[in-house]
Amino acid sequence: MRDFSTNHHWLSINTATVRRQLGREWPLPQILDACAARGIRAVSPWRDQVAAAGLEATARQLQALGLQLSGYCRGGLFTYTDASSQGAMRDDNLRALDEACTLGAPCLVLVVGSLPGALAGRPAHRDIALARAQVAEGIAWLLDEARKRRMPLAVEPLHPMYAADRACVNTMSQALDLCDALDPSRSGAIGIAVDAYHVWWDPQLRSQIERAGRERLLAFHVCDWLVPTTDLLEDRGMMGDGIIDLKRLRGWVEAAGYAGFSEVEIFSRDNWWQRAGGDVLDTCVERHRRCV
Amino acid sequence: MRDFSTNHHWLSINTATVRRQLGREWPLPQILDACAARGIRAVSPWRDQVAAAGLEATARQLQALGLQLSGYCRGGLFTYTDASSQGAMRDDNLRALDEACTLGAPCLVLVVGSLPGALAGRPAHRDIALARAQVAEGIAWLLDEARKRRMPLAVEPLHPMYAADRACVNTMSQALDLCDALDPSRSGAIGIAVDAYHVWWDPQLRSQIERAGRERLLAFHVCDWLVPTTDLLEDRGMMGDGIIDLKRLRGWVEAAGYAGFSEVEIFSRDNWWQRAGGDVLDTCVERHRRCV
Repeated sequence: MRDFSTNHHWLSINTATVRRQLGREWPLPQILDACAARGIRAVSPWRDQVAAAGLEATARQLQALGLQLSGYCRGGLFTYTDASSQGAMRDDNLRALDEACTLGAPCLVLVVGSLPGALAGRPAHRDIALARAQVAEGIAWLLDEARKRRMPLAVEPLHPMYAADRACVNTMSQALDLCDALDPSRSGAIGIAVDAYHVWWDPQLRSQIERAGRERLLAFHVCDWLVPTTDLLEDRGMMGDGIIDLKRLRGWVEAAGYAGFSEVEIFSRDNWWQRAGGDVLDTCVERHRRCV
Repeated sequence: MRDFSTNHHWLSINTATVRRQLGREWPLPQILDACAARGIRAVSPWRDQVAAAGLEATARQLQALGLQLSGYCRGGLFTYTDASSQGAMRDDNLRALDEACTLGAPCLVLVVGSLPGALAGRPAHRDIALARAQVAEGIAWLLDEARKRRMPLAVEPLHPMYAADRACVNTMSQALDLCDALDPSRSGAIGIAVDAYHVWWDPQLRSQIERAGRERLLAFHVCDWLVPTTDLLEDRGMMGDGIIDLKRLRGWVEAAGYAGFSEVEIFSRDNWWQRAGGDVLDTCVERHRRCV
């Protein structure tokens, strides 16, 4: 297992972690500058942040700063109610793929979606089996497009508390079954993003990490699970403030062959988003050394 | 599949559903009277409600009203940090068993616990594997005591969002593995409580219900998952107000041999607990007929 205690060579910052500081959007160009100024080598930006800053301008800034990507957030949301919404979904995913290529991302992270309309509080139906079938179909379609562009897809299983509205792929086992069905040769074209927050509870966590192996482990995200957790989405904890044994988890992931970045992704409306972005980045660096 | 549309013969009320109406505790004796007055045939009371009303008095009232139990809430919380807390846990579980016997419950429902101290916001450690080992040990110990009293134990897998503080048994598969290890002959001494709220998202839901079969299906709880859900514990929905396909789920449970009560258990701080208890019971009756 790599020693993270003396440097932050393998730290990446998911830019949602510092996007809404003190009630204001912190623009992506400033986030990137602040990361580079701290010797952080990698980031994972969100599409809307990139769109606001400009795709080409972001690509140029990343190159100028020597910043890598640890992933690109995000494609997916594959479920639909009719041909029109299916078409729009496909167009959007193709754009996400092309943006990931322009930015030189190592993978496009997929949050697969679930019941159509549920995120807006108006679910079109209650058939999660149908949603799962559409997700499998959507990933299969996108994988063909991704292979043409040599852009790996990272399916991210989300915590079951998001099963209704954000993602109906909720366990490592389920995500790996999808990968195995579409890519039995383990070509590297499709794998998973392992986010500690989403999977820490899974009784099969270790065995599924071993099953995934190097070819399927495309991204590793960290934050912490707070007790109590007061919001389903925006009360994630800084590493070390909760109950996830992150060192043990990283040990398993690395034993399975993962040697990439640890990407810090924290949505924290009432705590970390209420601080100056630079202070949050400094804390990420310190906790990454001590707790990950 | 039984027809629930014309009567509420198989409706049970978990008494937490109407315990805190309009800011006040609704005493158990009044809840029982209100259920009986509506032709509801079964309830599942909580231990603290029974303690407040008196164990023997509750037993007498249940008998006088002709009310059955669909379960008794609850034993468990098996994890500990030292011999003293282990001893207290065991004493408490023995009392729960004896109370269940006195009340004539068909099973004692087990919420198994997780990281010690986490419910109070002060987790003693972050080792969920240790918690799971203590839970397996605790259930094995309690099963011996339960067999002596002929009181079945119903292990309730809780939603993974409770994995840190309430229960580290989080899937049907995990609960059934515990049952199979302790009772390979499927004697009826141990099984599971299937609560729609906790398990609806599970990709293995149908296959694990089939695996459970009649001998392991000791209780069936219903409510609904709201979108959005605004609180991890106390924002559960009335049947029909959310996205769980309860009829499909009941169909699977009954196809596997379950023929008992559907127990309504709703924790709803800002909605159903803010109404008169009788109105809530009336709604339960109506939704049970239409949505379960």
